[in-house]
Amino acid sequence: MPVERASERAHDAVLRHIEDSLRSGGLKLGDRLPGERALAEQFGISRASVRDAIRALEVMGIVRSATGSGPNAGTIVVSDPSSALGSALRLHVASQRLPVKDIVEARVMMETWSLAHAADAEWEPGQAEEARRLLEAMDDPGLPSPAFTALDAQFHVALSALAGNSVVSTMMDSLRESIRGYVDDAVSTRGQWHDIVGELRRQHWEILEAVEARDGERAARLVQEHIEWFYARTL
Amino acid sequence: MPVERASERAHDAVLRHIEDSLRSGGLKLGDRLPGERALAEQFGISRASVRDAIRALEVMGIVRSATGSGPNAGTIVVSDPSSALGSALRLHVASQRLPVKDIVEARVMMETWSLAHAADAEWEPGQAEEARRLLEAMDDPGLPSPAFTALDAQFHVALSALAGNSVVSTMMDSLRESIRGYVDDAVSTRGQWHDIVGELRRQHWEILEAVEARDGERAARLVQEHIEWFYARTL
Repeated sequence: MPVERASERAHDAVLRHIEDSLRSGGLKLGDRLPGERALAEQFGISRASVRDAIRALEVMGIVRSATGSGPNAGTIVVSDPSSALGSALRLHVASQRLPVKDIVEARVMMETWSLAHAADAEWEPGQAEEARRLLEAMDDPGLPSPAFTALDAQFHVALSALAGNSVVSTMMDSLRESIRGYVDDAVSTRGQWHDIVGELRRQHWEILEAVEARDGERAARLVQEHIEWFYARTL
Repeated sequence: MPVERASERAHDAVLRHIEDSLRSGGLKLGDRLPGERALAEQFGISRASVRDAIRALEVMGIVRSATGSGPNAGTIVVSDPSSALGSALRLHVASQRLPVKDIVEARVMMETWSLAHAADAEWEPGQAEEARRLLEAMDDPGLPSPAFTALDAQFHVALSALAGNSVVSTMMDSLRESIRGYVDDAVSTRGQWHDIVGELRRQHWEILEAVEARDGERAARLVQEHIEWFYARTL
């Protein structure tokens, strides 16, 4: 299929050029990409291939495109790793190439690492408060379980971010939907929500207190016990 | 921009439907998606929106599309996490939202975890041999440094895969190009390649021997020393 290969090459050339420009600083966050026609001429490719490349960059969360003629129109470099990686990982989990057991192990690895490192990291203003607000919202006894599990996954991502490592945060954030997914499934198929929600709340508060006390060793141990307890209890 | 929002919603509906079908087993690896026209009718959206959604799935490595009428034509579910996540992470590193220091820390976390766990894991046939072949190729004294660093990154990904966790493997693989990138940059800007290549070879062989001896503790310690030594020496 030579036609397909030629178009793949065209599309790759645009992606490589943009990667190089980002690396060299020629293109920065907030910058606008040249228009479709200009890129097509620059690379000697069709406008359809340019659109394909831009669509790929959008899916990866590198650029955001808006139509129209306002100040936000055009294709702008935004680099938002989490959303795109999140959708991709979620779909891979759905297609069963990433088993729940592996997600649980990866969580234990990243969350124990993050909480051990969070103890010595400088936190950004409001970061720890966000985690606390999430737990307060989860204390609402009228909260339906899907809302609880969404906040639960957010709480774990927020705690991990306290370590201040953007690669680990991006990876944790990319697992957020997968975490919510398997916790939701466990709760809805096993139906033991009322038996465990109180214990989940208690464990969450205990973890947050260890984090706030900057006791990295205790926080890491508690989060590991918490993740493994839920997995053993429900799956 | 209501037009843009409407098209985003249309596109999300297709993605959600495919995610649900993958999760329920209605759609499996190797299955073919319905044609563009059928999907457009099913969701009541334009064929352009369907193409956008399929393009997004291709970028995420969930499907592969081929034109023509042969047995491989059409849009097929392939779920190849690594390539798509790899490009996305590489672009984010290029746009400097993911600093090298954070990549190095994330590598130490994932590679020490993987080598500690590889000792007790069942390896797939040929997995350990692949790592050995990569080292043998790197022993070639005439190998140019960019070829060496590409094999070097592959070697680390291959070692990590021995732990048998597909989430951690996917994440390591997604960092492969970023690892090659920063090692290449360090080598080409600091120009001390000849001083360090011999030491790199020695350390790699030492790590592989500990892995093959299933000494997880020693393998994890050696890989950590190796990654941190290179970072301190060159950056």
